[in-house]
Amino acid sequence: MFENANNRTELGSLGEFGLIRHLENAVEIKNKETLKGIGDDAAVICLDSEENVQLITTDMLLEGVHFDLVYCPLKHLGYKSVVVNLSDIYAMNGIPKQIVVGIGLSNRFSLEAIEELYSGMLLACKHYGVDLIGGDTTSSRSGLVISITAIGTAKKSDVVYRNGAQENDLICVSGDLGAAYLGLQLLNREKKVFLDSPGVQPDFQGNDYLLERQLKPEARKEIIEILKKTGVKPTAMIDISDGLASEIMHICTQSDKGCTIYEAKIPIDEKTYNLAREFHLDPTVCAMNGGEDYELLFTINQKDFEKLTAKLTYLLSVTSLLRKKVITCSINLTVKWH
Amino acid sequence: MFENANNRTELGSLGEFGLIRHLENAVEIKNKETLKGIGDDAAVICLDSEENVQLITTDMLLEGVHFDLVYCPLKHLGYKSVVVNLSDIYAMNGIPKQIVVGIGLSNRFSLEAIEELYSGMLLACKHYGVDLIGGDTTSSRSGLVISITAIGTAKKSDVVYRNGAQENDLICVSGDLGAAYLGLQLLNREKKVFLDSPGVQPDFQGNDYLLERQLKPEARKEIIEILKKTGVKPTAMIDISDGLASEIMHICTQSDKGCTIYEAKIPIDEKTYNLAREFHLDPTVCAMNGGEDYELLFTINQKDFEKLTAKLTYLLSVTSLLRKKVITCSINLTVKWH
Repeated sequence: MFENANNRTELGSLGEFGLIRHLENAVEIKNKETLKGIGDDAAVICLDSEENVQLITTDMLLEGVHFDLVYCPLKHLGYKSVVVNLSDIYAMNGIPKQIVVGIGLSNRFSLEAIEELYSGMLLACKHYGVDLIGGDTTSSRSGLVISITAIGTAKKSDVVYRNGAQENDLICVSGDLGAAYLGLQLLNREKKVFLDSPGVQPDFQGNDYLLERQLKPEARKEIIEILKKTGVKPTAMIDISDGLASEIMHICTQSDKGCTIYEAKIPIDEKTYNLAREFHLDPTVCAMNGGEDYELLFTINQKDFEKLTAKLTYLLSVTSLLRKKVITCSINLTVKWH
Repeated sequence: MFENANNRTELGSLGEFGLIRHLENAVEIKNKETLKGIGDDAAVICLDSEENVQLITTDMLLEGVHFDLVYCPLKHLGYKSVVVNLSDIYAMNGIPKQIVVGIGLSNRFSLEAIEELYSGMLLACKHYGVDLIGGDTTSSRSGLVISITAIGTAKKSDVVYRNGAQENDLICVSGDLGAAYLGLQLLNREKKVFLDSPGVQPDFQGNDYLLERQLKPEARKEIIEILKKTGVKPTAMIDISDGLASEIMHICTQSDKGCTIYEAKIPIDEKTYNLAREFHLDPTVCAMNGGEDYELLFTINQKDFEKLTAKLTYLLSVTSLLRKKVITCSINLTVKWH
């Protein structure tokens, strides 16, 4: 399946997406029910019905990599860990229905701590109408490990992949960007202050919005409902977990298109903008590369623009997708790919 | 959802199954498609068809808890991590179709090491006719983390739960028990010898079978095929991951039955027996509590006995299930629950 098994290639030289592409090449699909395997927000399985399909996605969250329990309350963590998975189902234009949860725990956690974590998960399940149907609980020698798989459904004809963007389509985003990243910077700053002088109270004044975007993000269920109501089917869609730059690159690469992003049209909340300046960060960089916004990024035919603007407050009313293929994979500040 | 959030209850005081039961009580099922949530080998989802259902199960394997990379080759680990999930689908009398794989990796792993792991996974996929359809790859600050979710299908009327065992049913097991545990003891002994005197070669002579049971177990696909061919539907079924004692307890508890296990009739391979003696272990204890055998444990109506014996070499041709409910949860050596 793989060649050169006697060499040593560092993972860092490939990056996450390079690694996934590399592994993907070795994967063969054998069952006719598997409509789409690796390479989108969720896999697509065809079942008995000709009309409906099932969507499957999985995400792993590791302590010290994806979250820091110093400032991330367990209930929020539970909520967020479910939401990030549901977001992937919505990004396929589907409706999440069930989740299974794998958890690795060390015995520094009490039962009450686990209850906090689960109550956050169950709150998200309730809010999004999803059932927690199973899981695996195991002891961990290192940190807390959370692995969630979400299952959703969609009409086969409604599923939106990453690879359908067309020339002259409009690029839309469902909300403002960069706030979750600034929320994280704020938490890291106050953690440092706290570690240096444990008596000092954290200073989060006026930044509730940014903290909430980081600690308790929501998946954009209502966008899927609006799309359905207005009869608009995006040509391509993805959720923004790694930042606008990374996600639009996925759409462009898989659709074999290029694009121009106008910096002035990237939606950035005023609080995000101001805090970025306070941290001597460029707000555009935060929006492009910050990640964890869990907004939906999608492309639509221009004729659908009017139907949506009445309903959607935010439109990254940006640009047209050009025909020319993306040449470079590096991310520039004022992004012009053509 | 939970009470007493201000106390501190140690997880050790509940145990894994106590914790699961506790959390399960807080879970509510809202979607009509969810036929069976937490509490069996896999969850059961009803989709469009009246006739077929889908089975979902998830398992997490953590370095230092479930495997030791000193003696577990990555390819074997990949193979085993898939097999243990497929085993849960077979334990519902279903056919596994797809898996999604979440992996947490530190950069001490090279690309070639990850390829080894994946090649084991893909070998298992090939052997069992399963598609690897998606996943999540992330960096880990601690050890290797593997989380796999398997998806399978079954006719709704074929699904076998843990809770259907009837009075006077026979208890059957699909193969010999305790070998995987003895394989582990052997590996641990040779690891210790190696750490004490790195020059000494490990002594595994004559114990290939036990090592294979530990390092490269198989899921009992052929049993499901034999059940189908003979038209026998077990009344209850579970796979043996934690040991016969634990699994028969699950069946008894959920079926509200008791049972008697005759020590002399527990199938133990000769090599397992001999090595247990060498380690001054009781072979019965190894079979009852060792775990990781991944054999299927099932109960059948006595009238189905003849149909199966022609096809199945091993039958834990044990005992009848009694009516009286299980009273104790502790495990005795010569088990008599009634």
